[in-house]
Amino acid sequence: MDLSQPRGIRDIEPDEHETHEKIRHTFEEVARAYNFRAMEPGPLENLATLRAKSGTQVDEQIYNFRDKAGREIGLRFDLTVGMTRYVAKKKDLKLPVKLASYGGVWRYDEPQHARYRWFYQWDVEIFGDSTTEADAEVMDLSYKLFEKVGVGDFILRIGDRRVVEEYIRKKLKVSSEDKVLEMMRAIDKVAKKAEPDLVKEYEEKGVGREELTDLLKFGRIRGAPAAVLAKLEEHGLESVIGLSELGDSLKLRGLKRVEYDLSIVRGIDYYTGLVFEISDVAHPDLGSLCGGGRYDVLPKIFGRTDLAATGAAGGVERIALSLSEKKAAQTNSVYVAFTEPALFGDAMKVLASLRDQGTRSDIGQRGKALGKQLEDASSRGFRWTVIVGKRELAAGTVVLRDMRDRKEERVPLNEIAGRLLG
Amino acid sequence: MDLSQPRGIRDIEPDEHETHEKIRHTFEEVARAYNFRAMEPGPLENLATLRAKSGTQVDEQIYNFRDKAGREIGLRFDLTVGMTRYVAKKKDLKLPVKLASYGGVWRYDEPQHARYRWFYQWDVEIFGDSTTEADAEVMDLSYKLFEKVGVGDFILRIGDRRVVEEYIRKKLKVSSEDKVLEMMRAIDKVAKKAEPDLVKEYEEKGVGREELTDLLKFGRIRGAPAAVLAKLEEHGLESVIGLSELGDSLKLRGLKRVEYDLSIVRGIDYYTGLVFEISDVAHPDLGSLCGGGRYDVLPKIFGRTDLAATGAAGGVERIALSLSEKKAAQTNSVYVAFTEPALFGDAMKVLASLRDQGTRSDIGQRGKALGKQLEDASSRGFRWTVIVGKRELAAGTVVLRDMRDRKEERVPLNEIAGRLLG
Repeated sequence: MDLSQPRGIRDIEPDEHETHEKIRHTFEEVARAYNFRAMEPGPLENLATLRAKSGTQVDEQIYNFRDKAGREIGLRFDLTVGMTRYVAKKKDLKLPVKLASYGGVWRYDEPQHARYRWFYQWDVEIFGDSTTEADAEVMDLSYKLFEKVGVGDFILRIGDRRVVEEYIRKKLKVSSEDKVLEMMRAIDKVAKKAEPDLVKEYEEKGVGREELTDLLKFGRIRGAPAAVLAKLEEHGLESVIGLSELGDSLKLRGLKRVEYDLSIVRGIDYYTGLVFEISDVAHPDLGSLCGGGRYDVLPKIFGRTDLAATGAAGGVERIALSLSEKKAAQTNSVYVAFTEPALFGDAMKVLASLRDQGTRSDIGQRGKALGKQLEDASSRGFRWTVIVGKRELAAGTVVLRDMRDRKEERVPLNEIAGRLLG
Repeated sequence: MDLSQPRGIRDIEPDEHETHEKIRHTFEEVARAYNFRAMEPGPLENLATLRAKSGTQVDEQIYNFRDKAGREIGLRFDLTVGMTRYVAKKKDLKLPVKLASYGGVWRYDEPQHARYRWFYQWDVEIFGDSTTEADAEVMDLSYKLFEKVGVGDFILRIGDRRVVEEYIRKKLKVSSEDKVLEMMRAIDKVAKKAEPDLVKEYEEKGVGREELTDLLKFGRIRGAPAAVLAKLEEHGLESVIGLSELGDSLKLRGLKRVEYDLSIVRGIDYYTGLVFEISDVAHPDLGSLCGGGRYDVLPKIFGRTDLAATGAAGGVERIALSLSEKKAAQTNSVYVAFTEPALFGDAMKVLASLRDQGTRSDIGQRGKALGKQLEDASSRGFRWTVIVGKRELAAGTVVLRDMRDRKEERVPLNEIAGRLLG
C-alpha cells in the first residue's frame, strides 16, 4: 500500500518533537509570567474570515477547500486572525485582554527545504490597549522568550510605520494613498535589493527617482535607539513620540539588544504603527524568528472600531533550526535489569517506583538473561542500568551501573530516583 | 462582517485551555516516565491511508475534501493511523518502539452537546512487541495517567477478543467468518441493549436464538480477574492464557481498580486480542475515558506483517469534563502598583524580577492613581498586589497586599517571589 503523505505534510519525529516541546513549555512559562492567558482559536475558519486580513499574498497561500456540504472552508494560516475574530465576537470580555496561543498553521505554499505546508506558531496579542506600553510589553515578552529558550545572539529591530508615512506625506509631499502604500513597500526592500534595481522598479510604478532616493536614504537610518531619535529630531516629525516613549519603556524593562531601523515596516499592509522583528544574528539565513506590531485595522474589519490590537508571532520550526547546533542534554533514562527470572516481579516494583517519581525508565524482557538485558540497555542508549539481584535486594539495595564507563556501585533502593535526577 | 465559525468548530477558551494544558503536561510526564518517545504524525493524510482502518463507520466520519490540485485529502480522525503509517514506513527503526502523541483530530460528525468536529486526543502505541507485557504496559500507563491527572474514581475494564472468538468457534460451532463478526458485534451491545431486543435484531441477521442467548450469557461473565479466570476454567479455552498472564503483570504493577469483562470487545473491527476501556465511575454518561488494545492487523494492511501493535487513546475534552467539578486552584497572580507616577520605573523593575522568576504578574497603567490601580487589580481578579512606595523602597521593601482579606505587610524586595510561590 502507498504510504506517502500529502504534498508538504510531514511527521514531527521524536528528536525534533523534543525540541518543539521545550520551546512550547518555555513559551507557556513566559506567557504566564507576563499574565497572558492561553487559548486556541479553531483550526478551521470560513474562508471569508481568513480573507479579511487584506494581503492578497496571503490569500493565495490559504489552504482552502469545499467541505462535504459545499461550504468554503480554510485551514488557519496564522493564529492572529482567529484570536482577533474571537475577541471581536466576544463582546463581554473585560478589556484590555492579553492572549497567548500556540498551534499548527497551514499554508498552500510550494514546499521547499525546511518549509512545509503545516508548521507551528506561537502568538501573543493585546486587545483594547492603545498605549505604547502595550507595544513594549509584546516586544519584552518576545525578547525574553528567545533569551529563555536559549537563542544566544539575537537582535530586536524596531520601526514605526507612522514615522515613515509622515515623512512620505509631509517631506516628500505625496498625497495619493496608493502611492504612499507603494513607497512603504519600497522601503521594506531597502535591505534586500540594490538601490539601482529599486529605482528602476519603482519608476515603472510612478515613483520619481529623486523622491525614491530621498526615501531610501531615510529608510537607511538605523542604530541604537538614542542615536536614531537624535537623527530624527532634525526632520521635525510629530509621530516620533511613539519611538521615543518606547525607548524609555524598553530601557526600564532592561532590554539591551535593541536597534531602531526605519526600513522595518513589515510587509503585510494591515500594520498601523510600531512594528518589529527579532532575528538570530548567527543565522541570518533563517530570516526573522518573530515579527509583530500594532494592527488596529483588523479588529475594525471585524466590526470593532473600539478595539486596539498589538501582538507578535513566530515560527517554531525556525527556533528549532536556530537551536539545532546546541545538542539536547542526554536524558537520565534508566533500564531496570534482573539477575534471574524469578526476580522479574521485584524488578517491576523498582520500575514502578522510578516511574512514579517521573524518571524515564524501562525494564528488560521477562525471561531474558542478564547479559542479554545489558546488551539491550546499551544498544537502546540508556544512560543507567539498575540491576536487581537477590543478595543486594536482601540488603535493601540495587546495583547502579553507569552505562558510559561501566562503573557499578551499590545504592539503597529508596535513593535511586533522587540520585538519577540530581 | 459575519464572524461565525464552520459547523462544529469552536475556540478553546482560556478556562478550558488551562485544564487542557494540565492534562497535556501530565500526559507528557507519564509517557516520559514509561519511556515512550513523543512524536506527531502530520494532520493531513491521503484519504486512502485513512480508509485503511477498516471500519466503514469511521469512513463516513472522515473530514475529507479535495485540495486545490484535486487530490483526495483527509484531516486525521485519530493519531493511531498516522503513527502506524509512520512506523510502517520507517523501516530502520529499532523495534520494539514505544511512541506517544497528543494532538487535534477531526470528525465530520453531526455536532452535539460537547461533541465537536475538532477535538484533542492523547495516544500511546507499542510497535514490534507481541508479548502480553506490552499490553500490560499500555494499560498501566493509561491507568497512571488518570490517577495523576486527578480523575478520582475510575475503573479499568478488560476483555479479550481471542477468548470470545474461541468460544464462538469451538463451543457454538460457528465457522462462517461473517457470522463470527456479527456475533462479536452482538456481544459488544450486552451492556447497552435489552436481551429481547438483541435476540430480535440478530435473528434477522441469521444468528439463532439459542446460540445468541448462550453467547450473551458468556458475555456477562465479569468481575475481579481471579474470579473471572476461575469461571473461564470450566470452558477449557486455550486462549485464556492471555488474560491469565495479564492478571499476573497487572498485579505486579500494583493496578487495583481492574475488572475483567468478556463483553468488552471494542466496536472497531481491527482489534485482535486483549482490549480495554477506562471509565469514570462517577460519570457513566461520559462513556469511556480511553480505550485500546492489540491491533496487529493495521500494520499488516500497511505492508508490515512483522509488526505487532498495541496501544491506547483517549479524548482530552472528556477528561476535562470529568475534572470540571474540581475547580482549578486559584493562581498566584500579582499586580504591581505604585504610589506615585514617578515610581513607575521602580515598579517596572519589580515586575521584571517577578516575571523572571516565573510569577504571573502585571502592572498598573502608567500615570494612574493608586486607588484606581487597586480597583483595577481587584476587578481583574489578582490574588496579590505589591505596592511600590517611596519610603518602603528606600528600606528595600514593598507592601504586599492580600486581595482576599486586604491585609497588608512589608516584605523585603528579594523575598516576594518566593513568598508568593510558597
